[in-house]
Amino acid sequence: MPMEQGDHIVRSYDEQLRRLRDMVARMGGLAERQVNDATVALVRRDASLATEVIGRDAAIDQLEREIETFCIRILATRQPMAMDLRFIIAAMKVSHNLERIGDYARNAAKRSIVIAQQPAIGSLNGFSRMALLVQENLKLAIDALVNDDAEAAQRVWAADEPVDDVYNGIFREMLTFMMEDPRNITAATHLLFIAKNLERIGDHATNIAETVHYAVRGDSLPDDRPKADASAYAVVRPRE
Amino acid sequence: MPMEQGDHIVRSYDEQLRRLRDMVARMGGLAERQVNDATVALVRRDASLATEVIGRDAAIDQLEREIETFCIRILATRQPMAMDLRFIIAAMKVSHNLERIGDYARNAAKRSIVIAQQPAIGSLNGFSRMALLVQENLKLAIDALVNDDAEAAQRVWAADEPVDDVYNGIFREMLTFMMEDPRNITAATHLLFIAKNLERIGDHATNIAETVHYAVRGDSLPDDRPKADASAYAVVRPRE
Repeated sequence: MPMEQGDHIVRSYDEQLRRLRDMVARMGGLAERQVNDATVALVRRDASLATEVIGRDAAIDQLEREIETFCIRILATRQPMAMDLRFIIAAMKVSHNLERIGDYARNAAKRSIVIAQQPAIGSLNGFSRMALLVQENLKLAIDALVNDDAEAAQRVWAADEPVDDVYNGIFREMLTFMMEDPRNITAATHLLFIAKNLERIGDHATNIAETVHYAVRGDSLPDDRPKADASAYAVVRPRE
Repeated sequence: MPMEQGDHIVRSYDEQLRRLRDMVARMGGLAERQVNDATVALVRRDASLATEVIGRDAAIDQLEREIETFCIRILATRQPMAMDLRFIIAAMKVSHNLERIGDYARNAAKRSIVIAQQPAIGSLNGFSRMALLVQENLKLAIDALVNDDAEAAQRVWAADEPVDDVYNGIFREMLTFMMEDPRNITAATHLLFIAKNLERIGDHATNIAETVHYAVRGDSLPDDRPKADASAYAVVRPRE
């Protein structure tokens, strides 16, 4: 492993890997905050917070590009092997997951601005619960990456089921609101998409966990993880 | 560049890169077909074709894993530089886009099974049109990858706007159907999500084009591509 102590431009290989880890952890923190704030903006009907979330997304996109460029530089100059190589590939994949999470949070924020102008429907507790669950999974997945912890990664990977349960509940609830009163349709449709965004954020947290497990262990988790999103098959009937 | 003619196990480096290109092209063909068949299944209310699409998704997932494993092997054994290195990273990224496209097609197929059991609403021409547009972009993006054609990639990257226009039209149309008759709500909701899936497939085709451009040229396209998806801000009012 090349060590170039004292070289302030190229830095040592270890230092580069540490810096890469820090960049991904920082990006994870930003993504978590975006998910949190987008949901708070929705629940509190706070359009100015939603606008902040939308504005902050560019910083996440920028970090993804920096991480990819940095990874390609390490690959080209260090010829990393085995676990280091897998870690660098993992960092690129995870930064892409985080970029997507940022996009979902931004999209939720956009929709929450429309919803704040519509009549309020029902309680949005399900959204807060979903957001908390996916943020927790996201945090644990990023911690697993930072600590090379394959067991922790596997626990996150298996923990997505409650997220899907809350999502299925919201899906049916929103369809019921729509059927009760057509004036609910615009808000309920946007809420459905926000719920879907949160569910996708949960999937990305799971993907991050899978990637971390592979980076540390060098083998893949089984194909079929516990998965309870049945909403693609959902049918809700209007009350007669 | 190491050449190992006659070595039937390790193969030459050039041959490995050619094989990688073939794998991605094959995966692109499968993804295109899934998008096509999922949409045909929807429009013809053909649940048995939809079930085929769902079953075929595993082959796409499998190809993504094979491509990643193969890329990591090339990175570890060949220490590729410059354009070759960028191409290998691009192949991994594109195979991930194609895997996601496969997931969206599978999800659309699942929803089309539910829709086939609901009362038919309106014409689904917009869906066929959207599917054709995204398939065309996807095909051009994969061709650009196979031919190292940065100009073709840039054309695809700029061509996503009509997809977004059709999507915005469908979004408003579905909300109107819901408001007219609550019995339309289940089908229209699933149709909304299918339209969103097709729109996301279009985004992935654009992402592939961006990745190809970067792989060939080594620099990124501008941040803001032409983008007309305004549906996150859409409001539709029930008729009084």
